Amino acid sequence: MKVGLVGLGKMGANMRERIRRAGIEVVGYDRNPDVTDVDSLEALVAALPAGERIVWVMVPSGPVTDAVITQLAGLLAAGDVVIDGGNSYYQDDEPHAALLRETGVGFLDAGVSGGVWGLENGYGLMVGGDKELVDRVMPVFDALRPPGDRADGFVHAGTVGAGHFAKMVHNGIEYGLMQAYAEGYELLAAKDLVTDVHGTMRAWTNGTVVRSWLLELLVRALEQDPGLAAIDDWVEDSGEGRWTVDEAIDLAVPAPVISAALFARFASRQGESPAMKAVAALRQQFGGHAVKPADALAAPPPPVA
Amino acid sequence: MKVGLVGLGKMGANMRERIRRAGIEVVGYDRNPDVTDVDSLEALVAALPAGERIVWVMVPSGPVTDAVITQLAGLLAAGDVVIDGGNSYYQDDEPHAALLRETGVGFLDAGVSGGVWGLENGYGLMVGGDKELVDRVMPVFDALRPPGDRADGFVHAGTVGAGHFAKMVHNGIEYGLMQAYAEGYELLAAKDLVTDVHGTMRAWTNGTVVRSWLLELLVRALEQDPGLAAIDDWVEDSGEGRWTVDEAIDLAVPAPVISAALFARFASRQGESPAMKAVAALRQQFGGHAVKPADALAAPPPPVA
Amino acid sequence: MKVGLVGLGKMGANMRERIRRAGIEVVGYDRNPDVTDVDSLEALVAALPAGERIVWVMVPSGPVTDAVITQLAGLLAAGDVVIDGGNSYYQDDEPHAALLRETGVGFLDAGVSGGVWGLENGYGLMVGGDKELVDRVMPVFDALRPPGDRADGFVHAGTVGAGHFAKMVHNGIEYGLMQAYAEGYELLAAKDLVTDVHGTMRAWTNGTVVRSWLLELLVRALEQDPGLAAIDDWVEDSGEGRWTVDEAIDLAVPAPVISAALFARFASRQGESPAMKAVAALRQQFGGHAVKPADALAAPPPPVA
Amino acid sequence: MKVGLVGLGKMGANMRERIRRAGIEVVGYDRNPDVTDVDSLEALVAALPAGERIVWVMVPSGPVTDAVITQLAGLLAAGDVVIDGGNSYYQDDEPHAALLRETGVGFLDAGVSGGVWGLENGYGLMVGGDKELVDRVMPVFDALRPPGDRADGFVHAGTVGAGHFAKMVHNGIEYGLMQAYAEGYELLAAKDLVTDVHGTMRAWTNGTVVRSWLLELLVRALEQDPGLAAIDDWVEDSGEGRWTVDEAIDLAVPAPVISAALFARFASRQGESPAMKAVAALRQQFGGHAVKPADALAAPPPPVA
Repeated sequence: MKVGLVGLGKMGANMRERIRRAGIEVVGYDRNPDVTDVDSLEALVAALPAGERIVWVMVPSGPVTDAVITQLAGLLAAGDVVIDGGNSYYQDDEPHAALLRETGVGFLDAGVSGGVWGLENGYGLMVGGDKELVDRVMPVFDALRPPGDRADGFVHAGTVGAGHFAKMVHNGIEYGLMQAYAEGYELLAAKDLVTDVHGTMRAWTNGTVVRSWLLELLVRALEQDPGLAAIDDWVEDSGEGRWTVDEAIDLAVPAPVISAALFARFASRQGESPAMKAVAALRQQFGGHAVKPADALAAPPPPVA
Repeated sequence: MKVGLVGLGKMGANMRERIRRAGIEVVGYDRNPDVTDVDSLEALVAALPAGERIVWVMVPSGPVTDAVITQLAGLLAAGDVVIDGGNSYYQDDEPHAALLRETGVGFLDAGVSGGVWGLENGYGLMVGGDKELVDRVMPVFDALRPPGDRADGFVHAGTVGAGHFAKMVHNGIEYGLMQAYAEGYELLAAKDLVTDVHGTMRAWTNGTVVRSWLLELLVRALEQDPGLAAIDDWVEDSGEGRWTVDEAIDLAVPAPVISAALFARFASRQGESPAMKAVAALRQQFGGHAVKPADALAAPPPPVA
Repeated sequence: MKVGLVGLGKMGANMRERIRRAGIEVVGYDRNPDVTDVDSLEALVAALPAGERIVWVMVPSGPVTDAVITQLAGLLAAGDVVIDGGNSYYQDDEPHAALLRETGVGFLDAGVSGGVWGLENGYGLMVGGDKELVDRVMPVFDALRPPGDRADGFVHAGTVGAGHFAKMVHNGIEYGLMQAYAEGYELLAAKDLVTDVHGTMRAWTNGTVVRSWLLELLVRALEQDPGLAAIDDWVEDSGEGRWTVDEAIDLAVPAPVISAALFARFASRQGESPAMKAVAALRQQFGGHAVKPADALAAPPPPVA
Repeated sequence: MKVGLVGLGKMGANMRERIRRAGIEVVGYDRNPDVTDVDSLEALVAALPAGERIVWVMVPSGPVTDAVITQLAGLLAAGDVVIDGGNSYYQDDEPHAALLRETGVGFLDAGVSGGVWGLENGYGLMVGGDKELVDRVMPVFDALRPPGDRADGFVHAGTVGAGHFAKMVHNGIEYGLMQAYAEGYELLAAKDLVTDVHGTMRAWTNGTVVRSWLLELLVRALEQDPGLAAIDDWVEDSGEGRWTVDEAIDLAVPAPVISAALFARFASRQGESPAMKAVAALRQQFGGHAVKPADALAAPPPPVA
């Protein structure tokens, strides 16, 4: 078996390696000449058997994915299949599928989880699309997913879009989990009574109800940097969290925890909060409460009447 | 009529003035010789008619209020009445009432709202205790409350503690209202489309569903300092918001809005958030995501892979 | 002066009346023959002076507004102006403006607040578009807005879309305010100590920090139905709250209070919460905690181990 | 070695069994004659070597724990040690320690996690108190904790109270984690696109970022009851979640996720929400919006104007 892989960044390169280790031949293409196997998308397509091609796309979601799939639509032939394994918005999947369908090319969307650990542990996979196509690509899915029972690491979640939808929800949950551990960490760290914060969280990694892979990672981070002194409290968000809350709103599903986790990230990136300036201004207006002047950065907070 | 008033700070001094304007004689006592009418609590008590004394306590809640009420318990006589008008925790009221009851002294708790504007507009009053005592003190309540229908500005809310409970809930609501306006302000300010943020909020002060006194104050603050440039995003909390959420937890009442407003204040005062450092550390662990080093204060946020 | 008004529902009919009371002639059109002044949109257009027409559209947002504006684009002439006073999504405004611009017709978007009380009190108005058009329509805005200083009830908030954006944020704030009062109401109602819930909230309407029009309405509702026995805890949401949170997410503005208020409405409409079933199932799995069987509607909750 | 164990409920009985399997003799006492080893607390104390006794208390927190520890204080001798392994509030620990200290009896507090699975997997343990006492009781801790590295399942977290504090925070985190998975579950279940909800969550148990023991339990629950049809959306809370949020408030630590999870449980148990009745009443007041009459249980929601 021989498959194409477009996009050899951090994730793509690791996935190429993992697929190869499973004995499947991979032709990888990337604009970066240091990592690519071929010179062009055309060359990648030419290296695969027409009408049976499997091309896995692993590039940034949005315009880049759009461009790659549009290009592939012009290069591939009826019977070929494209898998979008990036973090695409699930509503982009059907338009991509429709475009490829015009020339008889199949489409699957695959949510891929596992981060930098996936090369070693395998990737959790959520796939959307026709069963027949899923079956054809299964050897690749089997190469990528963790060893063990297929159902513990792979799912055919539904029709086109279901894979990315599932991945989006996965990431929304991830936001909530991370924030829950983070709040607990801060509570432990704030309490003098607790003299071993790292040890406490480490003790939670076995036997307790809260044990998880994320907890193990947090313990690992605390081992490397007790007090997390070298890390700023500035947290990026990468889209899926926003999409999850947008979706919750669209479906009228209450999502207080996932949205709170998302907003905490937004707040972490604000040098200054306009909203909290407004609250401070209000307190001053009605109560004559002292406010902290904006320029008094080093001054201690004033007493409040 | 002649009443005693203990505590002549910002609130107490204004209240003395408002009571006097209503034609009631007031003997005020404060440790600050510049504002006090008499030299001691003893002198205040001596200046009032035994068995008919009305003593309004307006000092900081907690230990100071405890101390003043304990002292008064030793000085007053059966038939006298003490009103605690400070922001005491409602569960402190019954112990205070019990202490005074030992010598036949009555007790009322009064929640007082209105801030620095109360002198001019009158104070909203919420009172707890026996009806007979409430009736006796009514001339003072009438002096303090806003003009108009008594029921629009005064309530006998229930037994001892009900006044401070009502004031606590009032302040909890206040937290939620302020945060709602503040979030709306930030949204307007974040949108290029809106070129007149102050004017928009001012237009809301008449005819709209969101019109309120707090909104008028926010408009006033924006008039004085467009962009709120002179105010830091650092917001104190004064106890009642915490108590309200504690009470919600105790009563199993969902309070997502009031608690969110409280937590936003906590976050506003954190130079650095341990929780968000933990989230950033987690992202780095599983995704190899770039983090912002803690010391790179001036550097732009790094791109996230 | 003579203007057209399309849509004579609850809001539109009241607005026609208020504009007429100001001495401006109004030709109203509605599909409902009982309320319309003319038989068709064509007749409405014909009744106004070409090139100077002012047509206020007050129909449901989305497809109906789209259809009316498209029709008007075919009927109106250069120099005419259309105002969309409905609750349109602000991103629909520029397409509408562009469509009308093709034939030289002007466009303004107007957020209108005030509900059923607007006829009597006047409507708060937030307008987006060109200044020249705003000035031309000002007599109508002056007729609709509350009496008093124009700036307390009217704003030209920015370019096309700014009026509906401001109205959207207004409604988002409204969600937060309502939820804050509601949480406070529930806390008072849950506490035995407080024997006069209605009286307490009524006392807040004058002199206090939380006084507002919404509070007065809640007091009015409690007067009409103490305990709110006749009202179900089922709360609709009408779009603007969702849009506000979507916008907060898009702008990366933390909106914990407005989103909590929105989610509380979603939850209020769920006969059964799948999420909470999942939490109950989890507790049963790890703790052997008793769960309430789904069919045991009348049974008391089981003791929890 | 021989230890005493007071309280042989679901947790205590399993712990007795696990300690015995490790080769340590256990004398268990419970009021239930079917499970107890001895007739009385006195008999339990008499069966252990004076001055070297180790007595593990595993009874409901609060009054029952208070009573047992008070009784033990009268029965034990200098040199003995009591471990409170129940879910006691951490602020109760120092009073218990002080009481026992009067007669030279030592005290440790132990947070125990693992639920019904602990017998098989071992229990996660968090212990507070003097190191010397911890060392003496270590064989029992080793028997109870999961096999493997001691630090992955056991921690001496700090002085008296630190064990229960750590357990409290553990449970607070647990609330947040459960709610995050539950929101994700509801989103999957609400989306037609996803045709295999159970399979999707099962696929997450290996390789993904969100993999955890709780996720495995949720998958297990969905296996046993797809759709969770047999489970009501009624979720108890057992104290630690409330204490965690109280503590967050006391320490001024923002805890938006843990508090949201707690409030979702409160809401799940309300037959009817007074707060949402208030919001519905407000909408009716200002907008003439239709409300759902309280008695129209089976009627569809009315259209909203």
